[in-house]
This record gives sequence, C-alpha cells and structure tokens, in this order.
Amino acid sequence: MHYLDQPHHDGSSLYVSTLAPSLGEEVSVWLRVPQGLAMDAVHVRTVYDGEPRYTAAAPDPSRKGLGGYGEGDTWWKATITAVNPLVPYRFLLISGRGQRWLNASGLTGHDVTDSTDFRLVSHEAPPEWMADAIVYQIFPDRFASARPGKDLPSWALPASWDGDPVIGEGPGTPEQLYGGDLDGITERLDHIQALGADTVYLTPFFPSRSNHRYDAASFDHVDPLLGGDEALIRLSDALHARGMRLLGDITTNHTGDSHEWFTAAISDVNAPEREMFYFDPDTGDYESWWGVKTLPKLNWASELVRTRMPAVLRRWLGVLDGWRVDVANMTGRLGADDRNHEVAAMLRPEGAAFIAEHNHDASADLDRNGWHGTMNYGGFTRPVWTWLRGDDLELTHFLGVPGGVPRRDGEAAVATFREFAAHMSWRSLVHSWQLLDSHDSPRIRTVTGSRELHEVAVGLQATLPGTPMVFAGSEFGLTGANGEYSRTPMPWNRPQDRDEPTHAAYRALLGLRRAEPALRRGGLRWLHASADCLVFLRETAEESLLVCARRAQGEPLELPLAGAARGVYNAGDLSPLVLPGDGPSLRIWRLSVEA
Amino acid sequence: MHYLDQPHHDGSSLYVSTLAPSLGEEVSVWLRVPQGLAMDAVHVRTVYDGEPRYTAAAPDPSRKGLGGYGEGDTWWKATITAVNPLVPYRFLLISGRGQRWLNASGLTGHDVTDSTDFRLVSHEAPPEWMADAIVYQIFPDRFASARPGKDLPSWALPASWDGDPVIGEGPGTPEQLYGGDLDGITERLDHIQALGADTVYLTPFFPSRSNHRYDAASFDHVDPLLGGDEALIRLSDALHARGMRLLGDITTNHTGDSHEWFTAAISDVNAPEREMFYFDPDTGDYESWWGVKTLPKLNWASELVRTRMPAVLRRWLGVLDGWRVDVANMTGRLGADDRNHEVAAMLRPEGAAFIAEHNHDASADLDRNGWHGTMNYGGFTRPVWTWLRGDDLELTHFLGVPGGVPRRDGEAAVATFREFAAHMSWRSLVHSWQLLDSHDSPRIRTVTGSRELHEVAVGLQATLPGTPMVFAGSEFGLTGANGEYSRTPMPWNRPQDRDEPTHAAYRALLGLRRAEPALRRGGLRWLHASADCLVFLRETAEESLLVCARRAQGEPLELPLAGAARGVYNAGDLSPLVLPGDGPSLRIWRLSVEA
Repeated sequence: MHYLDQPHHDGSSLYVSTLAPSLGEEVSVWLRVPQGLAMDAVHVRTVYDGEPRYTAAAPDPSRKGLGGYGEGDTWWKATITAVNPLVPYRFLLISGRGQRWLNASGLTGHDVTDSTDFRLVSHEAPPEWMADAIVYQIFPDRFASARPGKDLPSWALPASWDGDPVIGEGPGTPEQLYGGDLDGITERLDHIQALGADTVYLTPFFPSRSNHRYDAASFDHVDPLLGGDEALIRLSDALHARGMRLLGDITTNHTGDSHEWFTAAISDVNAPEREMFYFDPDTGDYESWWGVKTLPKLNWASELVRTRMPAVLRRWLGVLDGWRVDVANMTGRLGADDRNHEVAAMLRPEGAAFIAEHNHDASADLDRNGWHGTMNYGGFTRPVWTWLRGDDLELTHFLGVPGGVPRRDGEAAVATFREFAAHMSWRSLVHSWQLLDSHDSPRIRTVTGSRELHEVAVGLQATLPGTPMVFAGSEFGLTGANGEYSRTPMPWNRPQDRDEPTHAAYRALLGLRRAEPALRRGGLRWLHASADCLVFLRETAEESLLVCARRAQGEPLELPLAGAARGVYNAGDLSPLVLPGDGPSLRIWRLSVEA
Repeated sequence: MHYLDQPHHDGSSLYVSTLAPSLGEEVSVWLRVPQGLAMDAVHVRTVYDGEPRYTAAAPDPSRKGLGGYGEGDTWWKATITAVNPLVPYRFLLISGRGQRWLNASGLTGHDVTDSTDFRLVSHEAPPEWMADAIVYQIFPDRFASARPGKDLPSWALPASWDGDPVIGEGPGTPEQLYGGDLDGITERLDHIQALGADTVYLTPFFPSRSNHRYDAASFDHVDPLLGGDEALIRLSDALHARGMRLLGDITTNHTGDSHEWFTAAISDVNAPEREMFYFDPDTGDYESWWGVKTLPKLNWASELVRTRMPAVLRRWLGVLDGWRVDVANMTGRLGADDRNHEVAAMLRPEGAAFIAEHNHDASADLDRNGWHGTMNYGGFTRPVWTWLRGDDLELTHFLGVPGGVPRRDGEAAVATFREFAAHMSWRSLVHSWQLLDSHDSPRIRTVTGSRELHEVAVGLQATLPGTPMVFAGSEFGLTGANGEYSRTPMPWNRPQDRDEPTHAAYRALLGLRRAEPALRRGGLRWLHASADCLVFLRETAEESLLVCARRAQGEPLELPLAGAARGVYNAGDLSPLVLPGDGPSLRIWRLSVEA
C-alpha cells in the first residue's frame, strides 16, 4: 500500500494557513494533488452552525514545488471560516472517477459521516512551546535521591536503591519506598537535557500514604519526603534556567482518603466538604475510583469542588508550566452525570499545558475547550507494541485489554495510527503524548525483547507526529512486565544495568527530532506499509524527511518517486530511491529534487 | 462480498435483551458466531463512567437455532450494565486469527476508536408505537381541498389545482397557493390508510405569508386558510379513531418575520421579546436563517425562548402525537454558542415523537436525551439515489452537495448505509425516517426515471431498518426535479397522472412491512453487495426474511446457505437458494430450515 498517487491533506501547517485561528477568522486550506491525477473540480465541505456548506477550491500556483520534490503536484486552495470553535471540513473531489471524499481517514468513493473530517479548531491554542516539546517522565521515589537515608514514615517499607528488587505485585507494592527526592532530580538535569528532553513531567509530589502519591493527602504543599515546596522551587528554577519546563500530575477524579477535604467530610456530616464527595445519605458509604476506598471520588456538582480544584491548578503555575491530569477520562462522570467537558474547560489554567490521561480512545473529549491532548496509548503505544512485540512476550493484558498484546503486521499498525489520528484534530494529535511505556505499563524493552526492536520503537516515537514522552529508565533499556515492576530505581550506580547503545540511540533520535522542524511540525504522508516495513514522509514547505522502519530483514523497497535522498540517520545516500532491506532497522533520509 | 461467515451483532432485539433499559439496568447482549468459526474467548468491552471494562461472554445454548436456520451457530452471551445513559460496547474476539474487534462497522483486525461501537441507550425510550410506524408526509397546500374557491390572502398567487403547473423556481414560488386544507386531508384518510401508512406528518399549519408556512406568524393557532384549529382537531380525531397518528412540523431555529414575537421585538428595543432574537446592538440588524431576513433566528440563551418554545410544543400534544423539527441541526447553534443538545432535551415533549430535520450526518446529535431520530437523507436517501439513479438524470445538486447525484455501485451504497448506521444506536436508526424524497428534494420517480427502479427503491424503503416516510404523491409516480417542483397538487381528478402499478407496489410493499414483524423490528444482516445486486436478511427469533434488490439483469446468485425459501413478494419458492438474475427487481422470501 502507498499513498503517493493520492491527493493529500493532513491539517499540518503545510496545508493550513494557521493552526491557531481565532473565532471568525478566515483560513486557507490546501489539497495537494499528485501530477497525473486530473480533477474537474475540488470543493471544501464545512459545517457552519450545524449546516453543511461548500466552498469551491482553485489551483494555487504559488505553492508548486514545496517540500523539495513533487514539482508537478497541483495545490488546490480554498478559504474557509472558523465560524464555530470546531469546524469539521473535508474535500469533495470531482473527476472522471466520480465524486470522492478525502477526510482524515483517507479517500473514499462512498458517502461518509463527519466523524473523521479534518478539524479546524479555534479554541484557545496550546502554549507555543508544546509543539516542540520532548517530555521526560519521572516517578519521584525511583529517580534519584539527593539525601539518602532519610527517615521514612511508618507506613513505608524501606528499600535499598541498588539492592532490593521492586515489589511489582501483592502486599508491599504501594508501600515500598526507595526514598527518591526532588533535589535528586535537580542534580541529574544534565542527563535529561543531553537526552534531548526539555520538559520534565513528575508523577504526583503531594504528601500521601503510598509511593505513587496518587492518593494525595493535600494539594497545598509538596511532600516533605521529596524535599517540600522549596525543593520543587529549586527544581523548577534549575529547569527554567536551562530553558526547560516542569509539569505536575494532579488527580481531578478523586483525592486520597487522608486528604484534608475528605477527612473533614467523613468526620462530620454537616461539614461543608461533605458535598465534595458522593456520600450515600443512608449508609454513609461513598463513591471511589473503581471501588478503591482510599480514593474517594470528587463530585463536580459541588460548588466547593468547582472553586477549590481550579484554584489548586492555578496556585502551582509559575513553578509548574502545566499539568498532566490523572484519570481525566473519568473526571466528572458518574451514572447520569457527565460534566467532563465542562470541568476540563474550567480546570485548564490559561497559558499552561494541560494533558489528559486516557488509556483508550480520547477523541470524544478532545478538540473542546479543555485538554490539549492525551496520553496516546491507544493510537500510538499499542499499535507500536503489536508490531514490535518480541516472540517470547508473555503479557496477560494491555492496560486491561484481555488476551495480552497480539502480534500484528505493519498494515494493522498503520490502520490503527490512522484510525485514532482521524478522530482528532492535527493540533490534538501533535500535542498528545507519544509514549512507548510509562509508570502504568510494561517497559518497551520487555515488550520488544531486544535492543534492535527497541531502537525501531524509539525511532517511531521520535519521528511520528505527537509529543514524545520518555519514561525515565527506558533510555537505559530497563525492563518491567507491568506498571509496578517498571517503577525501577534508576541504575546510576549500576553501570552493568545500563545499556549504553540504547542510551546512545535515544540521544541520537531525540536529538534529531530537536534539530529537524519537519519531525516536530511537518505533515505526515504514509508511503508504504507491509508486514515488516513502514515508510513515511514528514514534510514542511522547506524539506521532506523519509523514514523507513523495519522490524525484520526483507527485500529492498523501490519507491515510486523520482529523485535522490541524502542519509540523515543510520543511512547512506540513495539514488535511485531503493530502500535497503536489512532489519530490524530505523533509517532516515532527506529527499532532494530530481537530480 | 457477504457476511454469513462472520460473527454478527446489530443491536436489534434479537441480540439485546431490551432496547429500553433504565439507567443502571443489567442487559444481556449476544454475539452470533457461525458454525465452523472457532473462538477461544469472547469479551464485551464497555465504557463505564469514561473507563473501558471487559466482561467475558459464554456460549448460550438456549438461543440455538433462532430465526429458522443456522442451527449450528453459537450464541455467546454477556451481561453488561447501563451504567451511563449511553454505554458504548463492542466485542473482542480471541481466536487462532488473533484479537479482532466487532463493532457496528464490522470486523477489524486492528484497533479501533469507540466511534462506531454499538450503543446501549437508557435515555427515556421513544413511544412504543414509533418503531412500527409508516409515515405519510403531506404539504397541506397541495394535498386536497375540502372547500375550493376560498378567499386567498393578498400575498398569494392563486393557482388552479388541476390546471396550473407548479412554479418551481424564481418569482412566485413561495406565493403560489393552490388552496389545500386540513378537511381535505380528513376526507382522504382511506387512501392513506390503504397505502399502509399509519402516521400523518403535516408540514407547518401555522399562519404565515407563504405556501410552505415555515415562516410562522404565530405558533398559537392553525392558519384559517387551512380551516383553523377546529379543522386540525377534526383531522386528529379522525386519525385517532382509525388508530392512526398525527405529527406537526415546528421551526425551533427561527420564526417568520411576521411572527408576533418578532414584530414585538423589532418595533421596540425595550420589548421583552427583544432578547429572543439576535439583534446587533449597534445596527439593529438581526441574525436569520442563512441570511434570509424573513426568518429571524431564535436565541436560545433567552429565558423567554426557553420558556415559550417548549410550551408551544407541549400545547399541541393530544391533538398531535409528536413533532418533526425543522432545521433541528442549526437550532441553538451560532458561532461560539452551541446549545443544540440542551435545547433538544428541553423541547422533547414527554411521550411524544420527536424527529429532527438533518440533511446530512446527524449522528453527533442523536443518542442524547433529545431527538428520537432524524430524516435520514445522508444514510438512506442519497445512497439509494446513487445506486438507482436513471441514466438521463440531470440534477445539479443533492441538498446542496455540488456535482449532482453520482452513479455508484451497490458496494458503495451498502458502505454508506453501514457507515451512517454505525454512528448511531440501533434505536436511533430504526426511529429515523427512511425517505426516498420529500418536499425538499426531487421526487424519487424523477431520480430513478423508471417505474421499475422506483419499485426497487420502495422495496428498500419497506424492508430496511428505519421508519418509512412517503411523500404524498410519490405513490402515484409524480415527478419533480427539486423540492419546489415536487410540491405537486395531488392528481385526485387526473387519473391519467396516476401510475396505478406504482401505487399498487407501494400498497403491497408497505402492507408487507405492516404484516411482517421482521421487516419492522428484525435485525439486519447483509449477505451480498455487488454493482447491481444487494441481498440482506431481516431476522427475528421466529423468522428470517431474505430480500434481493437488483437494479439490472444479472447472473443468478447462489447463496452459501443450506435450506430453502418460500416466496413472499414477487418471488417463487427456492430450493436450493439460487436467487434469480432478472431485474430491475425486488423480491422477498422467507427462509426455512434445511429440508
């Protein structure tokens, strides 16, 4: 399968005059039609105020030859208007082949719904820096300790950093404490920056009664075990001095049962805080996250919740540059009540990053006035895993999906990438986190089972649209068969546990993403998908980068493209464009015009 | 293409224990797996309170052999819960072929979003009678007159019922008045009932300054030209006496500029009614439907609108059994304001039918607490037209889509039927109106260009899921190249203008729908789609009806089904199941178990 002989549009800035229009603004959109494809007419279908409208497009000679090749392509241009905060649009192509539609799912010869239309979004745009970000996720208890041997609370099971294995399941899992702290992170910023990351995302730093701290006892101060507020400020200042950024992690769905709001509510039925949770008036029982009683669920009908929670998110800004929101998918949802979109809009602090946790399809919650993006497990992590999983992998589930991680071919991986991307705007796609693993999942090294496949995975993470998020430790090839096992203390003092070639691959690939605008902000065109090989282009007006990912050895692949290519990563120059067949491999070239 | 060797579920009552669950109710769902398809496990994936959950299914021997054939099929059963008003669900199939998903789009071997999941809806169910209804649409000025020669208002251009052609475009189009009235309808109920229809839908009956009356001057009384309130009550009583029903047509997006609310608002900037519309405080200009100043747009932020409009809809109940809502798609939508779903929920009168006008994809507005269904132009009318259009058809647009009505093959028609159906619940699908034409479109006879293809179209209308809506006059084969030309006065006195074979086909096919529960409430399984031939099953626990629609002569079609079939419509008995190739044709059989 390849798409080079198909008309193309993808919502990136190569095809849209602005990705941050204001309401009512006129916006140009372009359709790129390869040479040799005759069109009688092209129209853009929009929906304005609930009603479809058609705007005729016309060829725009000024765009000819953009991207360094394809000079014969015709660029059709139309001007549409951001009449509503979300305007769906797609192209109607009229030619000798009849009427066809091009939407974010591709080209169809039958009628389609609006569900995978392209999307022009004029809600307030995310902060400009986010589109270029590379995020590094830190689970504070396991990253580094600046002050080893500190006193631990009575609930904790003390563990030795380089001596004790992680308790990945059963008793002791949430209590095992290694004693990492925030100053430990501040001391290790050289490592993070050298990796190419510019944004540190911390899982919760609030006081609690567990090592993961998702059961916050307060949202008002940093856990003294981590060094308290001052340590967070030191970390923030150090990051900002490097031009880097810091994100926190907040639970908007629930608090911990030791949280001051909840203890007030449960100790007195007349306490003002009582309304903040869902108490049964008869039994006194209360709603909680999946019935886990240590995590009482917040009631977003409560005015106190609606006042206090947004204030919490605002209070930390300045020190933080934004938030990742835990269990964002369930926030404000219970039975007949669904306030999720309203709550997201109410919570989003102006000018800050705001990323939702979803482990599945988030599309219905995006492109509204709330979350900027999601943790894209469904649309990135899982298709990469199914394509690159090792032969001996024994995982019983993927974030709850029964049956483990199936082995699938490249066509299925691309179909999934496209299916998920088609249900959100380009803007939501590029601001969503593209992760190979996290503190809630197996490590990518365990999933792939090899250094070579791990590098292919990192290559996809570094080159596809979306914000790379690296879970600390995976750059050393650490392993872990589930989220808890993956919360491995960093092997700073165990060189034998650090895979330096893997570390080098992360540095090279993420460094390339930092260096190449096309990898961060370019459009995406799929060129080829087969069982073992995926090929795509990332394109700006200035350049086209060609990426080839192979999970196994195969035949060399001849592309239906005239021209030549210069090797950029792990690749020599090519002329003609015949991609080598060795694998597993990840290679990148820069396309140049026909010699 | 055929689906008989695929697992099946479609949300109909053959596969779901109730189509009207209450919130929190447990509901059984079944997956039918054809003999010979081994499954290692089947799970049902739901989303509860925003989070995916999996429930294991188990074979249910009690369902074996339902539907009169397929005794070797395995029925897998799982119990899920209506945790939220809308619970998406799909099936995870684990077998030697890996993990596959079955949702309303079909079977996929890659991961999918939730957008085409099946939907369990526990919002208040539509009135029970609606699922069996056949609707007959009447444009009152053109149906019948009980009192010819009445005085016409000064704006009207009087026309002679059997003498003057319709002015289909240009000056005079909205003013041309033939003088039909409500008592004229009451006198013709035998005709309507004999056709098989049981529900009369009237386009607006409020006083106005046009023949279509979408520019209402009041919502408080019936236009005296139509006979006034008393005539409407007489019609309603006569229908109810026959066990039939009556629906009105209301504009919730706008009023006419002669409406009492608007004249109050425009004559006094301090009038309470001023807030009901969107006046520009500087210029005094106001928002209107597509800039048509005779149709000022209602502002649903106004408390007066929010009080008065729902009262209007309630006030006529009893006389009426429900409403079709004009421009429902734009109601409450303007720029940054989108109150459509809230308004639909606020307007829906309890116990009454409530159908939205959409000429495109309505799915994002359905399965909420408002509209029961939509006028399914996009998911039924247009695919039927593209498949059955005549060779000489010259229509410049389809409800605004540039490029006219393309000619497409059967595969494309089925793809469109499935695409639109997949984005709504089974409940919304069957309550949506399945129309071949209306007062806003060309007549189906003009589109098909022949009696034979017209009959095939009526056959699809009578046998596919969805509520048939017949536009008065099409049963006589009347023609019309656009909505205005189609508003043809009925040829009661012009036997030469009535195609009685077409009339007979309507009576037979709609009569069959009335007689056969499987055609009204059965599930739908597509068996075959090719350029010229569509075959499908409608199935209840008791029976399976087989429908074959051909637009042209072709080869006989051998079905991969053991057994025999008894002819039900235009068909002889079959054994083995080889469907005859003559066409255009519409044939129906009843399947029976293997002889």
